[in-house]
Amino acid sequence: MRSVVIESPDRLVIEQRPLPEPAEGEVRVKVALAGICGSDVHIWHGHNPFAKYPRVIGHEFFGTIDATGPGVDPARLGERVSVDPVVSCGHCYPCSVGRPNVCTSLQVIGVHCDGGFSDYACVPARNAWHIPDAISDRHATMVEPFTIAANITAQLKPTPDDIALIYGAGPMGLTVIQALKGVYGVKQVIVADRIAERLVMATNNGADKVVDNSHQSLEDILNKAGIRPTLIVDAACHPSILQQAINLASPAARIGIMGFSGEPCTITQQSLTSKEISLFSSRLNSNRFPDVISWMAQGKVDPEKLITHCLPLEEVQAALTLFATDQRTCCKVLLQMHN
Amino acid sequence: MRSVVIESPDRLVIEQRPLPEPAEGEVRVKVALAGICGSDVHIWHGHNPFAKYPRVIGHEFFGTIDATGPGVDPARLGERVSVDPVVSCGHCYPCSVGRPNVCTSLQVIGVHCDGGFSDYACVPARNAWHIPDAISDRHATMVEPFTIAANITAQLKPTPDDIALIYGAGPMGLTVIQALKGVYGVKQVIVADRIAERLVMATNNGADKVVDNSHQSLEDILNKAGIRPTLIVDAACHPSILQQAINLASPAARIGIMGFSGEPCTITQQSLTSKEISLFSSRLNSNRFPDVISWMAQGKVDPEKLITHCLPLEEVQAALTLFATDQRTCCKVLLQMHN
Repeated sequence: MRSVVIESPDRLVIEQRPLPEPAEGEVRVKVALAGICGSDVHIWHGHNPFAKYPRVIGHEFFGTIDATGPGVDPARLGERVSVDPVVSCGHCYPCSVGRPNVCTSLQVIGVHCDGGFSDYACVPARNAWHIPDAISDRHATMVEPFTIAANITAQLKPTPDDIALIYGAGPMGLTVIQALKGVYGVKQVIVADRIAERLVMATNNGADKVVDNSHQSLEDILNKAGIRPTLIVDAACHPSILQQAINLASPAARIGIMGFSGEPCTITQQSLTSKEISLFSSRLNSNRFPDVISWMAQGKVDPEKLITHCLPLEEVQAALTLFATDQRTCCKVLLQMHN
Repeated sequence: MRSVVIESPDRLVIEQRPLPEPAEGEVRVKVALAGICGSDVHIWHGHNPFAKYPRVIGHEFFGTIDATGPGVDPARLGERVSVDPVVSCGHCYPCSVGRPNVCTSLQVIGVHCDGGFSDYACVPARNAWHIPDAISDRHATMVEPFTIAANITAQLKPTPDDIALIYGAGPMGLTVIQALKGVYGVKQVIVADRIAERLVMATNNGADKVVDNSHQSLEDILNKAGIRPTLIVDAACHPSILQQAINLASPAARIGIMGFSGEPCTITQQSLTSKEISLFSSRLNSNRFPDVISWMAQGKVDPEKLITHCLPLEEVQAALTLFATDQRTCCKVLLQMHN
């Protein structure tokens, strides 16, 4: 089988590997489609602190179960599945409070262990989630990216009365917009980005108002409109954003961050405490696959609005480069392994 | 009547003022006892950004209703009451989501308007909470300081399985310890402070383990003991604490801050996001008087453990100075107006 292997930072090869056999409790997934995420690019270029090399990347993937390991019900053969990349121990403190995504011995498929940019991948059976026929292959591949939005919104608890501000209209921002509008019915979602084409995507994904903050002051625009966001998500993930978000926020607002920057981020506690703002961070997803599968099955979100490209596995390097460099026309890129 | 007036920063006088008449919707409270808080000292010395002068300070007070304004049930005459200092509009966004403590037109009795270091004080009738006979006058005066603990713990949602770390064993830290142990049954509460006498108080108030971090590294002690706190409260309120708290925290931990410092506080988002830590800030209290009155009536907390001094109103300046300067023998200081 073919596997996309990052041998070491900046060394990507498509390698022929033997077909893996599922171990106890595992299933083998014949991968149909996989999505490219920023963290795949980071591992390729050596910028992911958790990755060990060589590594088969890819943590957003969909396919069919074509083999079951010992202890797994063989009736699952042929099942259409999306794979949750979060592999957790099940008994540490985070696992015990429903947060397997920060398990003390967390293994992320495609980061800590081999992933889905491959013709076949063996994964724990409980990580392979059944996809109903109502959800297409392309959309099923998008379950994982929508779980990122599901995870942060589950913490922020949006309500219809919220006025939301989203920084960044990349894939994370767009899935958050769709969740806020389609799932939670938030009355006003405002999106700020520095790229005009991305703001068009934001509108297409449901944003009520967009602000190009490349040449305008977001503060001035919101202040003039008398808007004080009650819910803010930083999906642009630059550490300079947080203090501005705190300043713009309404009293009693919730702010969500997803950034992994190790750069210093300076805030004042007075600006948080005087308005009693809560700050939630979000990483990966904590058992959100069933939620997102349900959202898709009910048509509450539309993954198609994010997918701009689909390339064959052989073109993985071009696909990663496209994703990393062309933020104007490219949003979500899928890789096709099998039809 | 006598009122403690801060005429301008550093100018404290005991002034004779005419007996005030309660306006519509108000009651007049004949103040029996009032507690001294750090923010009273800050207003005295001009360090509170919200205070306007001249100001009668005091926002922790207990007494009996001795007059009712128009629209208030005269049956309340003679009622024993503790006064919630949070006066809110009732219809802005924070009020609409149960957060009157960050009302957009917030008025705090004793800060924005005249307070309780006075023989009598007129306050909105709905801010005067009935105190059952089972709660003594001294304890009733302590309801407001315990609402600070009630407010932050309500956000942090402690469970018996938590391992809590409290920075600071001053009045805020001690009330938090009592709430965590007596109300939420948290299994382990660890307290760090730099003053040995305060750590004795922490133990008396229920701490399971205390650490004097004036000459020992808190990190080293917790690391050696294999302790990763799941719930942290910064009741010492120095902006340097937050990054250490984040570093010490378990994955999925919640951190509460109450500090009002305008000094820069530098953290990295990676340290938050990699462990998916949530950060709650807490200011004053949001309708927590009924909770605390119930805690006291049921004996879940014991305010007596915090009260170290009680002085007559005439000695207010000595009392404030004692509170501000003697952290070794002094914790909570009450002022007595009437027997």
